[in-house]
Amino acid sequence: MGTGTAVEGTEVERDAMARALDLARRGPAHGPNPRVGCVLLAPAGTAAGELPGRVLGEGWHRGAGTPHAEVAALADARSRGLDVRGATAVVTLEPCDHTGRTGPCSAALLAAGVARVVVAVPDPNPAAVGGADRLRAAGVEVVVGVAEDASRALLGPWLLAVSRGRPHVTLKLATTLDGRVAAADGSSRWITSPEARAHAHALRAEVDALVVGTGTALADDPALTARDADGALAAHQPLRVVVGERDLPVGGRLSGPGGEVLRLRTRDPREALAALHERETRRVLVEGGPTLAAAFLRAGVVDQVHAYVAPVLLGAGRPAVADLGIGTIGDALRLRTREVRPLGPDVLVVADVEEEER
Amino acid sequence: MGTGTAVEGTEVERDAMARALDLARRGPAHGPNPRVGCVLLAPAGTAAGELPGRVLGEGWHRGAGTPHAEVAALADARSRGLDVRGATAVVTLEPCDHTGRTGPCSAALLAAGVARVVVAVPDPNPAAVGGADRLRAAGVEVVVGVAEDASRALLGPWLLAVSRGRPHVTLKLATTLDGRVAAADGSSRWITSPEARAHAHALRAEVDALVVGTGTALADDPALTARDADGALAAHQPLRVVVGERDLPVGGRLSGPGGEVLRLRTRDPREALAALHERETRRVLVEGGPTLAAAFLRAGVVDQVHAYVAPVLLGAGRPAVADLGIGTIGDALRLRTREVRPLGPDVLVVADVEEEER
Repeated sequence: MGTGTAVEGTEVERDAMARALDLARRGPAHGPNPRVGCVLLAPAGTAAGELPGRVLGEGWHRGAGTPHAEVAALADARSRGLDVRGATAVVTLEPCDHTGRTGPCSAALLAAGVARVVVAVPDPNPAAVGGADRLRAAGVEVVVGVAEDASRALLGPWLLAVSRGRPHVTLKLATTLDGRVAAADGSSRWITSPEARAHAHALRAEVDALVVGTGTALADDPALTARDADGALAAHQPLRVVVGERDLPVGGRLSGPGGEVLRLRTRDPREALAALHERETRRVLVEGGPTLAAAFLRAGVVDQVHAYVAPVLLGAGRPAVADLGIGTIGDALRLRTREVRPLGPDVLVVADVEEEER
Repeated sequence: MGTGTAVEGTEVERDAMARALDLARRGPAHGPNPRVGCVLLAPAGTAAGELPGRVLGEGWHRGAGTPHAEVAALADARSRGLDVRGATAVVTLEPCDHTGRTGPCSAALLAAGVARVVVAVPDPNPAAVGGADRLRAAGVEVVVGVAEDASRALLGPWLLAVSRGRPHVTLKLATTLDGRVAAADGSSRWITSPEARAHAHALRAEVDALVVGTGTALADDPALTARDADGALAAHQPLRVVVGERDLPVGGRLSGPGGEVLRLRTRDPREALAALHERETRRVLVEGGPTLAAAFLRAGVVDQVHAYVAPVLLGAGRPAVADLGIGTIGDALRLRTREVRPLGPDVLVVADVEEEER
């Protein structure tokens, strides 16, 4: 550490990190745990003819309750009958140092006799941090920061959630060109196209929870499920969260098949997010309506906005976002555009809320 | 005519039409006259060794008061000392048959001894139509419809204007993601980025007139000029039109340099457009505000919408479009997306209002 060379790793290690990132992507985007990949490389200067950097094992994390990437990679090497003593472990996230549903990865790497560990991103999780220190204390060489940006991008919402102690929040809007989310009579099916709705359903299948206010639950009776174009439920169904103090009638579509339903009787977004963080919910999608959207924005807890904009004009009806207490253009909430994607006739604008705007 | 082959023209003629379209594009997008190009081809079977389809002359229309494309092409051939008798004229728009600022092109082609005329688009202008008929009556072979779609696309707004007897209308909106065009205090500089504003200024330099309501003129004191990024005026300045019955103070930015200012004391968009059509105004850009936008939309005279959408949220303020009398989602005004173009952090959505929505 401390020198550019150290942080960069060797060329073989950088290649292995790219592979580890590919492996990490195989894991689920949802769930309490991050997507992590690990590649075990043979030590340099082993048996003659042995190339340094030969891959001994590979692994990735397949979701909560299953082995972490490092443990999976060690098991992979073992299953091939390969000796990992003196090996280098290349892993996209700092090995954990705590016992959760599984044992600490730092201990597993030490027990296997790994000599060097190359890490992309330091663990931001206060409950899990310390892996690098434990490894170093035991004499293992540890390099942190190889391909860090790419790994951070993959970890995205999880990284934010564990470092802030609240879920990553995406606010979804589905609006007309003139910013309406429903007509004057409250009708809103459909403003956006089938292509945009399919995209929104794919996003639902990646997040841990969908959040709506009681107003939307009462007005629209949404199912809050992730479905394909034929209406079939996706394998992963997000938690269905209704925030607010009003009572809901029994028997609506929320009683139908889908994720668990959670009623949070609060109007405070921070309180709602704290309850979700308790459940290890990492990424939530706030789907409406305008009052809830404004409450989350005012509380400064929206990280990203997904705005599906349809080539439709209404001239009246429900505006996308209720009052934010902004009186003049200089105080407008300015986002950073991350992506502009045409979806059929509509366009999706993905924009980040930056730190200073929160 | 009447057979597929005839409408297609020969391969040489189709190539010449593509060239004529390229020439047409050199003309100005604004002004009362269409952009037209013409290529004169040597007759087949002329002097031995002469390739059929040798180009004798080329021309395009450079704007009102200058020669039409056909006349320019004849002059080009003559200046090269070439004989056009028996030649084929390939022209993107049916030759006119009337005497306006210049004489009829049909007569000029006949006088020159052209034997065949290949046309992309029939002339929709009631005042100018008849060129093909006059040529046929004089024994000239006339083929209409070669590369018609491409030529129609180039003629776009002009074609609509002369066939409907009113200018083509583009409605420009510059909105936040939540559909606001100004904050609660009326401030709106700037919602969109320099990139989006530069694009909007380039569009101003292509149209014949900018139209705002008295409300916008009073609230924003706009200059309504086409400028480059440094604030320098473009060569072509559109007519500056203020529609509505309220009085304007003297001395505002509209008194500054720019296009002619036209006050139309009416609230009826059709009346305003009729006055502009009288002046041979072919393409207008309606720039605001919400009341004027709604009036034009309700009158069914908006042909295209240019919506510049910025990644900004306001939560309150002036909505992009005032009441359209639409109460339910089934009656929403649905446009056909023509283009989605990222402009810096913003996105431009260009969408057409289709016939049945008007």
